[in-house]
Amino acid sequence: MSSLPTPEPTSAAARPRVLSGMRPTGALHLGHYHGALKNWVRLQSTHDCFFFVADWHALTTQYQDRQNRNSIERNVYDMVVDWLAAGIDPEKATLFIQSRMPEHAELFTLLAMSTPTSWLERIPSYKDAVEKQRASSTPGDGATYGFLGYPLLQAADILIYKAGFVPVGEDQTAHVEVTREVARRFNRIYSPDAPILPEPQELLTETARLPGLDGQKMSKSYNNSVAMRDAPEVVDEKIRTMPTDPQRVRRSDAGEPSRCPVWPLHQLYCDESTRTWAAEGCRSASIGCLDCKKPLIEAIQKEQAPWRERANEYLANPKQVQWIVEVGTERARAVARKTLREVRTAMGLAY
Amino acid sequence: MSSLPTPEPTSAAARPRVLSGMRPTGALHLGHYHGALKNWVRLQSTHDCFFFVADWHALTTQYQDRQNRNSIERNVYDMVVDWLAAGIDPEKATLFIQSRMPEHAELFTLLAMSTPTSWLERIPSYKDAVEKQRASSTPGDGATYGFLGYPLLQAADILIYKAGFVPVGEDQTAHVEVTREVARRFNRIYSPDAPILPEPQELLTETARLPGLDGQKMSKSYNNSVAMRDAPEVVDEKIRTMPTDPQRVRRSDAGEPSRCPVWPLHQLYCDESTRTWAAEGCRSASIGCLDCKKPLIEAIQKEQAPWRERANEYLANPKQVQWIVEVGTERARAVARKTLREVRTAMGLAY
Repeated sequence: MSSLPTPEPTSAAARPRVLSGMRPTGALHLGHYHGALKNWVRLQSTHDCFFFVADWHALTTQYQDRQNRNSIERNVYDMVVDWLAAGIDPEKATLFIQSRMPEHAELFTLLAMSTPTSWLERIPSYKDAVEKQRASSTPGDGATYGFLGYPLLQAADILIYKAGFVPVGEDQTAHVEVTREVARRFNRIYSPDAPILPEPQELLTETARLPGLDGQKMSKSYNNSVAMRDAPEVVDEKIRTMPTDPQRVRRSDAGEPSRCPVWPLHQLYCDESTRTWAAEGCRSASIGCLDCKKPLIEAIQKEQAPWRERANEYLANPKQVQWIVEVGTERARAVARKTLREVRTAMGLAY
Repeated sequence: MSSLPTPEPTSAAARPRVLSGMRPTGALHLGHYHGALKNWVRLQSTHDCFFFVADWHALTTQYQDRQNRNSIERNVYDMVVDWLAAGIDPEKATLFIQSRMPEHAELFTLLAMSTPTSWLERIPSYKDAVEKQRASSTPGDGATYGFLGYPLLQAADILIYKAGFVPVGEDQTAHVEVTREVARRFNRIYSPDAPILPEPQELLTETARLPGLDGQKMSKSYNNSVAMRDAPEVVDEKIRTMPTDPQRVRRSDAGEPSRCPVWPLHQLYCDESTRTWAAEGCRSASIGCLDCKKPLIEAIQKEQAPWRERANEYLANPKQVQWIVEVGTERARAVARKTLREVRTAMGLAY
């Protein structure tokens, strides 16, 4: 978190505001935790964090999939439980659901009036989708007005809370950049003397891509993930059956950690002495792959234990989760409405 | 009104629903009355009418004009007063303001997810604007995401009330057509067994283009209009100074009504015997142009008298106008919310 300021403030008002969202894709996995959630947990102590379930965004690319849609509701609450399990504290952070905030849609609509279409057309993720589209024989998701406008909806998500910071991976900086441009143009046209929408900054996070069970990026759709709430025996089974160095065919063959998909997990989960033991044992064939995996399995299971404990408490009391979302949504709404009032006034729409 | 059904129902529920809106462009003129309002007044007896001030739409093309924006608020209530003056009865019709209905923005956002951009790009008014844009050296209004999406916002305006009919001029049928396509696609994707959004029909109106004081179409921007609430002496002055047959230079020259910009106004405002008198008098030079204009001036002033009377009552009591809009907005909101609930449920967003 190199780009964080270093204040230790106490009241929410004094802390710089952070906004971040996740699409409801079902049970979160270790890749989500190490790629985003762990950072959220850290941020909630130093920043005024607004974390939301981006269920509208899920529809910009998956609207035709009925199966997907039917599972959104379950996914929404499952995801909130995963957040809470990971240590997100609803007393510190504001948790809410995008689709419960028509205010985002209103700001999106109002910002649309002053945002050139060309700004959206030139965003890399959109250009990629259009390219893929052209190469495909069936017209797909990339061709909708909503998909084209998705970065603008994201800009509305951010600007409505006047968030100063947005945690992003390197591939999403274009989205924060366009958010700044949208804010700048809005301010220039509608309120040049007293800018209303602050320009947010990226909060580049130091998180590495977590490899999945096959060495590719961990992703639910690759079916190579370990869920945050996988039972210990499931983790045991998944890691034990992970492929290792393909050149170490027999137990007696010497292996090379840099060729082994398990090795990057060791880097993340095990301490230096364990890693040294594993690397030396592998290269000398003095330990087998199952030996090597054992401390990793234990480390993952140990990491998961408090998550499972917290999740079980919340799962035993689903009303409490709904209540947390309810309170967060109303807290977010108060901020959103205040911004919208300023926006409407500047646009000449407040009567 | 050739395309109207002919029921004489009593309750709003039994009457087919009509939706129509007007951009707040300032005081309405005779062209607005004869082109739209007169029709609205007729429709309110036979249909369940929802009439709204399209203030968001005004921003799709005029957002950069600060003067324009500063006057929107005054224009909004001025326009509602003109509606009431013309005979719109708030007991029969529902009057409301678009920007007070975030529900429209939410449906717009949700419909965006399933609407191909190409449907919007091929609408004639958009294509025209893009052409003009290309020909111009400065990037203008036609290039915004909001302008591209304007027919989709209009579709949301219509579909959220499940309106069966939309009164349009011939040049707007493409907008109702795309609304039907948007509804059809939404229903097919999200609710194939029980369509949620009915496909609206055009209600083609028989209204002629009202010529302005210079013979062109009457339009505020051409500065050739007679406002609905122009004082009698202003009407007198405006019509008296209207140009007439350019070939009738002297009082003693014979004229030809078909060359005279005043003649189409005679067709609309005067009875047959007056028209015969005027045409014969013109062709024989037995009457002068001011003689000819006199019955027209009187007819316009007579038409305006009850408007002015009603307008003065409302202007003396602005709270009443606000109250009418308040009641209309809440009535519209109840309908809009019901539709949105169905839409959210079908999309898997209701929790």
